[in-house]
Amino acid sequence: MDDAVRDHAGMEVLSLEQCEELLDDGYIGRIGFVDAGDPIILPVNYAYRDGAVLVLTAPGSKLEAAAVRAPVAFEVDGWDVDYHTGWSVLVNGVLEELDGDEERKYEDIPLTPWAKRVPRTHWLRIRADRITGRRIS
Amino acid sequence: MDDAVRDHAGMEVLSLEQCEELLDDGYIGRIGFVDAGDPIILPVNYAYRDGAVLVLTAPGSKLEAAAVRAPVAFEVDGWDVDYHTGWSVLVNGVLEELDGDEERKYEDIPLTPWAKRVPRTHWLRIRADRITGRRIS
Repeated sequence: MDDAVRDHAGMEVLSLEQCEELLDDGYIGRIGFVDAGDPIILPVNYAYRDGAVLVLTAPGSKLEAAAVRAPVAFEVDGWDVDYHTGWSVLVNGVLEELDGDEERKYEDIPLTPWAKRVPRTHWLRIRADRITGRRIS
Repeated sequence: MDDAVRDHAGMEVLSLEQCEELLDDGYIGRIGFVDAGDPIILPVNYAYRDGAVLVLTAPGSKLEAAAVRAPVAFEVDGWDVDYHTGWSVLVNGVLEELDGDEERKYEDIPLTPWAKRVPRTHWLRIRADRITGRRIS
């Protein structure tokens, strides 16, 4: 029997616990926000800790968005193209830069920037105000 | 010699031709827009044809965004977690619903909705106003 909770589009609704497991397991996610009037989606590698998404960044549009505490979306997903199955998790919250004291809380996190030519020394955090997830199985 | 064009963050800038090849090859992308004041990122399967991203959808937030011709971002990416390499392509444009005449232009496209419980009968299109891409190699 299929007793999954479904949304208006027929997709299975994931529980908060399922969403957090998928966030814990992920490496790459995408941050979405409005940059100079246009929506933008930027992939990042990340860590999920204590209900927050953590990202290391260099100066640029993400850091500028953090300076004004912009509302952002953060998304992770996974797919099987052959079987037409997949899932996605969406986190909504405010993007903010950490200060030195807060950074030290996270200094054990093995978060390595992939693009190495410009140092990424700014820690950004999205504390989750809302976490939702869907699955097609 | 590495003569790649690089952005402020040290990532290789992809040409329009490279971006369109990656869009042609993709199956899954993500649409980002502002929904009721909050940024949102929704994964979709898609086709890329004639400089436009095509998506089939059911009633919901994407169709509502198309009704007001919302500015959207559309993103595809690919990653190798072991080698810390990857790429992403970002399309900016307006989300719009196709009418019957326009739909017939695309009727040969093998675009199959993955979530099948609710029929997806609305064709949406994002005509690319801007296409940008980055690569970490």
